[in-house]
Amino acid sequence: MHWEGEKRRRLRQLEEAIERGEVDEPAIPVLEAINSLPDYCTTSSCSGRIIVLHEPEVGDKRGSEFVAKWHEPVEVEEVREAVRRAPDEGLTWLKAQPPLFHVLCRDLEAARRLRSAASEAGFKASSIRSIKDSKVVVEILGSERMEVPVKIDGRETIRREAWPHLVEMCNRLLARGHARLERLVRAVEGLKDDAG
Amino acid sequence: MHWEGEKRRRLRQLEEAIERGEVDEPAIPVLEAINSLPDYCTTSSCSGRIIVLHEPEVGDKRGSEFVAKWHEPVEVEEVREAVRRAPDEGLTWLKAQPPLFHVLCRDLEAARRLRSAASEAGFKASSIRSIKDSKVVVEILGSERMEVPVKIDGRETIRREAWPHLVEMCNRLLARGHARLERLVRAVEGLKDDAG
Repeated sequence: MHWEGEKRRRLRQLEEAIERGEVDEPAIPVLEAINSLPDYCTTSSCSGRIIVLHEPEVGDKRGSEFVAKWHEPVEVEEVREAVRRAPDEGLTWLKAQPPLFHVLCRDLEAARRLRSAASEAGFKASSIRSIKDSKVVVEILGSERMEVPVKIDGRETIRREAWPHLVEMCNRLLARGHARLERLVRAVEGLKDDAG
Repeated sequence: MHWEGEKRRRLRQLEEAIERGEVDEPAIPVLEAINSLPDYCTTSSCSGRIIVLHEPEVGDKRGSEFVAKWHEPVEVEEVREAVRRAPDEGLTWLKAQPPLFHVLCRDLEAARRLRSAASEAGFKASSIRSIKDSKVVVEILGSERMEVPVKIDGRETIRREAWPHLVEMCNRLLARGHARLERLVRAVEGLKDDAG
């Protein structure tokens, strides 16, 4: 792999995706901080999200489909409406998912440094996901997570009066993930000096 | 680190833990398969579990405490009773957690092989968690997961009639994780030939 060429190509794709509005806003400072370092190149990102997901059968992750997806705080009625819209048979999930970044690293030592920095910035679930030839991929992953089965074979599981609390929790988890992104940016900027 | 000495010491600890009944039964064949290979040594394990967890404040993971913990299928009433027993203030979770193994590897190449084998056996979230000096730790992790806030500041969120379905889902996730452990044992045994 020609590192410089590969990175240039990926950064071009990223710029186009940002222009098309396909990259969620809060992720952008993190992407910029990581990509400004010579040893790293982001390949995918999510700043955290709230989703309603439908599985045609319990456990059929492959057949699962998004019913709704939000990257910003959501209203109770939006969520409930999405849950009602999901097919009755099978399983409908309401999930809050933490920030997630995949980063291609020039070598193993660079990967090790990034993983440690991310972990210290509160992204405890960060790890080295794969090492193939000279490619090392780091996954930066938060832990602000909730996974609630809200409709099972057409039956809603959540009490009506609990919905506002549940959605508030989703929004809080999202906000906490976003707040942690600032710490991540500072941690990544700290790597500049390490690389000396 | 003297690999052979460290591994002998850890295996002795593991044997003692098994004798004391501290290791959950379904994990044992996996531990035996991994430890029978010269390049690997398990450091912790869980075959998957269902837990009721209480956080004194929403998001206070450090202050969180187990209310109940099961490694085998559970009855609806046991779960509900644990949820009622949890303090009212704060947040009570019902979680189904996937199988989890931490494995010390002799070197990076051994770690890479184990992570790939685990991933192919369906443990897609497996990763290299840390590389320090010559220590490489692989985390083998399943994806059978559910995380439901069941009591928020004293208010239960789950409809009474939904409880049996929710607990059944926990039990199914647990069973699916256990079934996958057999694939993991075979995948680990396959590494024997790779190492030549």
